[in-house]
Amino acid sequence: MTTISFPAVPAPDEQAGRQAVARQEQLTKPVGSLGRLEELGVWVAARQGVSPPRPFARPRVVVFAGDHGIAAHGVSAYPPEVTAQMVGNFLSGGAAVNVLAANAGATIRVVDLAVNADTPPVVSARKVRRGSGSIDREDALTQAEVEAAISAGRAIADEEVDSGADLLIAGDMGIGNTTPAAVLIAALTGTEPVAVVGRGTGIDDTAWMRKTAAIRDALRRARTVLNDPVALLRTSAGADIAGLTGFLAQAAVRRTPVLLDGVVVGAAALVAEELAPGARQWWLAGHRSAEPGAPLVLDHLDLTAILDLGMRLGEGSGALTALPVLTAAVRVLGEMATFAEAGVAGPTEAEASGPRP
Amino acid sequence: MTTISFPAVPAPDEQAGRQAVARQEQLTKPVGSLGRLEELGVWVAARQGVSPPRPFARPRVVVFAGDHGIAAHGVSAYPPEVTAQMVGNFLSGGAAVNVLAANAGATIRVVDLAVNADTPPVVSARKVRRGSGSIDREDALTQAEVEAAISAGRAIADEEVDSGADLLIAGDMGIGNTTPAAVLIAALTGTEPVAVVGRGTGIDDTAWMRKTAAIRDALRRARTVLNDPVALLRTSAGADIAGLTGFLAQAAVRRTPVLLDGVVVGAAALVAEELAPGARQWWLAGHRSAEPGAPLVLDHLDLTAILDLGMRLGEGSGALTALPVLTAAVRVLGEMATFAEAGVAGPTEAEASGPRP
Repeated sequence: MTTISFPAVPAPDEQAGRQAVARQEQLTKPVGSLGRLEELGVWVAARQGVSPPRPFARPRVVVFAGDHGIAAHGVSAYPPEVTAQMVGNFLSGGAAVNVLAANAGATIRVVDLAVNADTPPVVSARKVRRGSGSIDREDALTQAEVEAAISAGRAIADEEVDSGADLLIAGDMGIGNTTPAAVLIAALTGTEPVAVVGRGTGIDDTAWMRKTAAIRDALRRARTVLNDPVALLRTSAGADIAGLTGFLAQAAVRRTPVLLDGVVVGAAALVAEELAPGARQWWLAGHRSAEPGAPLVLDHLDLTAILDLGMRLGEGSGALTALPVLTAAVRVLGEMATFAEAGVAGPTEAEASGPRP
Repeated sequence: MTTISFPAVPAPDEQAGRQAVARQEQLTKPVGSLGRLEELGVWVAARQGVSPPRPFARPRVVVFAGDHGIAAHGVSAYPPEVTAQMVGNFLSGGAAVNVLAANAGATIRVVDLAVNADTPPVVSARKVRRGSGSIDREDALTQAEVEAAISAGRAIADEEVDSGADLLIAGDMGIGNTTPAAVLIAALTGTEPVAVVGRGTGIDDTAWMRKTAAIRDALRRARTVLNDPVALLRTSAGADIAGLTGFLAQAAVRRTPVLLDGVVVGAAALVAEELAPGARQWWLAGHRSAEPGAPLVLDHLDLTAILDLGMRLGEGSGALTALPVLTAAVRVLGEMATFAEAGVAGPTEAEASGPRP
């Protein structure tokens, strides 16, 4: 029995969305000529409940770090101690997420929920445990641990929203974490292991076979709890991914838009949509990761990625690369002149009633 | 006989490119995990001749405005006077290009080479003529006009590079300008009119038939001068597009990278590659326009678009939406820590020699 439950996810503001569509038609450009940028601007207006939408005042990345028991079984190209080393790299500003956040005007928070080492208190305040069970043969977490991890992610979302974050980006760091992500994606989309197993950090063929076997074994265990999202996280995830799940669900409950990253965040998103149905209305897909599970996540959540650049790093890097595009969409809708303001003629009568391809 | 000729286009610096590739392998991420971002960083390093590449100090958009005689024949959804009105909108800061340039940290220059109205001297200093001949039945320009237009574009590129521009973006504005663009694309890629004709600003089916017929007729005239790029511009372009062509060729001669926009700039790029073979080595495709001619341009120039967002506005808008992604690529290569600097372990030995998918 779980004590975890989320309230109903609020719907976006359709009236603000309609006002934004009407404004797009008044701006000095042919209707639809900015393509996806127009849709993104409308999307943000409906989430903020105001047209035109406001530029994001405090876009915020939260990177969830954790180790995974399965990493001891050779499913990654990197040794497990890299997770803690990369947490240090995040804190000293040298990682991709640091550079890409600075480029996009976002700030970063790093959270250690399950790193298999001591990390600074600012990072480890909500730590649940070190590592996780090896999911091919045992549960990742106990019931108390999975509930603590989901609650931690939820509390972090609340803290960030209460501190003024008006766009959230979730990132991941953890050697071995694409293995549980693949298991969750295969389980919730009804896919065979071979269709979700990816090269992760860049494994060779032998490691790929080990990873596929691990996913196959873990998937057998996952399928027994398929209809219980908390039990699925307990069995097959890890505290970092369970935390991501609580974070993504709570962001939606708090009416805060989220820019999703790659497969690890995507796997958590699949579970979060089960925990808090409708949460996906508050999420955009920043990019389409090169990992094979990525299109399965996008299809299942009915999301279209903004970017498709063959990225597969995690950390929130793909979402942060997409953030300036989303910012552009918001600014276009808010800052462009209307035909009336600029004294520019609109389309001629016959054409204005014609098709809008 | 033309007096126009360009010197040989210099090659990018392959050594700087190799140094950039080597640096990518030292940064704290799996090799290749940032996908296209890694390639873009290397590309810029080879153009700047230095690794890591420098952040762009002065990215600069030049919007080439001009009217087109063919617009009198109902090939656009907007009346021709919109060209001059939009020049005014650019100068007062209300257009999409203004907002997107501000979002990307670029500045804008507007050039009137052929607007069918009086525009401010700051814009019209190099004006060649008003409008152009209706290319379905007569040449767009005289020989003197086409040479003046190409020379104007070339001089503008020189001025910008001499003023410190280290990334150039070309934009277009002109009611009716997708018709000559489609003719140039069809002519240089050997394509039928129906495969290149697009909805432009959003025309209805009747206008689409008129536009297709105009392209068919203009293409008959264009094909007689297919092997002479200056004659092709004289016959089928217009002073704005001829200016764009000179600008794109001269940017390459001046070793200055260019981010291309949509079909009008793309059509000029096809001609510029004929005028100055190898110029395309200095160009990136910012986006894949929704206009049907766009993929033909990209294929012909062997370019892969950074973004694919269904945009079709022109003005440089697609390139400016892509600019923050290019900026991210440059900053990642320049600012990320190496494994050694960050004290992060690299891949384990067995894996390091494995495949790099």
